[in-house]
Amino acid sequence: MNLPPAAIGAAVAEIETPALVIDLDAFERNIAKMAEFARTAGVRVRPHAKTHKCAAIARRQILAGAVGLCVQKVGEAEALVRGGVTDVLVSNEVVGERKLRRLAGLAREAKVALCFDAPEQVDAAARVAKEEGVELGALVEIEVGMERCGIAPGRDAAALARRIADAPNLKFRGLQAYHGRAQHLPTYQERAQAIAYAIDAVNETLAAFAADKLSCEIIGGAGTGTFTFEAASGVYNELQVGSYVFMDTDYARIGGKNGGRYTEFEHSLFVLSSVISVPAADRAIVDAGLKSYSAEKGPPWVHGRDGIEVVGVSDEHGKLKVAAEAAPPRIGEQVWLIPGHCDPTVNLHEWYVGVRNGRVEALWPIEARGASI
Amino acid sequence: MNLPPAAIGAAVAEIETPALVIDLDAFERNIAKMAEFARTAGVRVRPHAKTHKCAAIARRQILAGAVGLCVQKVGEAEALVRGGVTDVLVSNEVVGERKLRRLAGLAREAKVALCFDAPEQVDAAARVAKEEGVELGALVEIEVGMERCGIAPGRDAAALARRIADAPNLKFRGLQAYHGRAQHLPTYQERAQAIAYAIDAVNETLAAFAADKLSCEIIGGAGTGTFTFEAASGVYNELQVGSYVFMDTDYARIGGKNGGRYTEFEHSLFVLSSVISVPAADRAIVDAGLKSYSAEKGPPWVHGRDGIEVVGVSDEHGKLKVAAEAAPPRIGEQVWLIPGHCDPTVNLHEWYVGVRNGRVEALWPIEARGASI
Repeated sequence: MNLPPAAIGAAVAEIETPALVIDLDAFERNIAKMAEFARTAGVRVRPHAKTHKCAAIARRQILAGAVGLCVQKVGEAEALVRGGVTDVLVSNEVVGERKLRRLAGLAREAKVALCFDAPEQVDAAARVAKEEGVELGALVEIEVGMERCGIAPGRDAAALARRIADAPNLKFRGLQAYHGRAQHLPTYQERAQAIAYAIDAVNETLAAFAADKLSCEIIGGAGTGTFTFEAASGVYNELQVGSYVFMDTDYARIGGKNGGRYTEFEHSLFVLSSVISVPAADRAIVDAGLKSYSAEKGPPWVHGRDGIEVVGVSDEHGKLKVAAEAAPPRIGEQVWLIPGHCDPTVNLHEWYVGVRNGRVEALWPIEARGASI
Repeated sequence: MNLPPAAIGAAVAEIETPALVIDLDAFERNIAKMAEFARTAGVRVRPHAKTHKCAAIARRQILAGAVGLCVQKVGEAEALVRGGVTDVLVSNEVVGERKLRRLAGLAREAKVALCFDAPEQVDAAARVAKEEGVELGALVEIEVGMERCGIAPGRDAAALARRIADAPNLKFRGLQAYHGRAQHLPTYQERAQAIAYAIDAVNETLAAFAADKLSCEIIGGAGTGTFTFEAASGVYNELQVGSYVFMDTDYARIGGKNGGRYTEFEHSLFVLSSVISVPAADRAIVDAGLKSYSAEKGPPWVHGRDGIEVVGVSDEHGKLKVAAEAAPPRIGEQVWLIPGHCDPTVNLHEWYVGVRNGRVEALWPIEARGASI
């Protein structure tokens, strides 16, 4: 593990760069806003920890009313349970004997559930849960337009749910109906349409469940780009929102409800970098590249510095283009970058540096960094 | 730190996925080929550890004749020195009091050098080195067409070298003249032209150095896409090649000397994944996404499995398109992926799993993973 890039109480100027920095005020407002929205809408929040991978953040979300957390991987579930989270849903299929045994082990310490989209997964999990003497919660994942995992909605999904309900040591708990691709559709209307399709798929499946007297405790889905639609659907009851705590340029580029940009949540996550070279008047180089932020959604945005943009990204460097009217960057100057995609950016770092009023207030380990197994 | 994804001696089928796997035979042939090339060409190899970030690999490169290693960051230098590397060049500018003190500390245990492209960097490093009572090697980085860091070649570079030579506790050792952008130019001819430009810049600078009686022990640069040109230049004497140990799709796509693809080195690095869902005949989902490989150079290639390609990448999933004539993927089946870009892919993992003849032979910690400070 790498050392934390700052000490509690240090000034922001003293943070070693590159560092993953949270603006704690903005971060807390984002968590409060989602919690208040869910209370008003009468739905539960089960935030997705694939975004933050951090038990300290999970505990704050639970304190704000979340019923538990989602994760994608067994390793992430382990990290959260060790950090005090008592209710974890793996919103994904889990394949492999040892992964299932690890998950079964966790079920001795916390309430654990996972998703299924094929009979052989059900049989394997039931066998392991029985051998380990534990109960695993089980959701059927249905295809709702994302074309990733998920069994066909309706009768196929009901048959799989029945198999779960009849299996030893599995408890059928509901439906996983997440539409990931919908989150970043460019306009509000396109996102609304995509989720309308998902709601139809859920309703079709619930009808098939009802015919077999299967009832759902959880109907989960939604992300930061679409959660208002799922919340208003009357069928979804758990929002699996993740990125809302941080935001990123990929979310900031989508369209808002009344045209313009999507500004429901504030940018609270930054990669803090430093200028290491100013080889020309129109060019400066910072010390943060592909090993400090992911760039498959494009280069990061520069925050709070007019006339400067990132135009090139390499492994350990970011190339800044400096407009003629911009204040010239100085060697050693800190530059705040907003990542293109928060989840894989967080996955590069071992520490969050929480700042408020210009000082380091918190250092949170990112326990589930790299926990892709 | 996450647990290693396999045990020594285990069958490949038992490796937990996603895992970063090295084909040891191919990897060893790559190292031997570069070592033999350099011997024949009469140049030194100082491989770049920003690719592998691993002391076990650095030690193998040194055993094959490398004179030392390059790194980009102070944290990487620390990891290698702790792992037994006695000669490290930070092929980059180092800005910041604490980073310089850490580097000075390392100079008590190993031969350490770094690069400069501005007078204030020289003054800061000399002051710290003097206060710490150590000597730091110093190279002038010149701009050779890459438009990243680097002072202008010729007289500006000579003035900076003179400042270094006159500074306390810095030892002027030569020239950093790396052309990163040239490495991936599509054709052999374009790469040759780019390096011809770099060689001109080096020669202009050496003439200016000679006028001030400054001599260079190291003239370093080159990467996996261009090293034959630098080696044949008669001026470069150290090759800073990195990716040749592994290769990736970004290198595999560039053109070779006689047309066709670039095949000088073998793919030895893979992300081993598993199928977790087969929701449709033409679609399968694997358990490795953006948290297991970087995708800013496009999705990974599928290795050794005809008719299957990665067409979608999300945080923890890869979506495979399965051609009608391909053998249908099974849930649990392992799929070998060739990453788009090896350096940031390695930076996601904590362990290399070295395999030979279908079994796990080696587990190497990636000590400098995340060492971006």
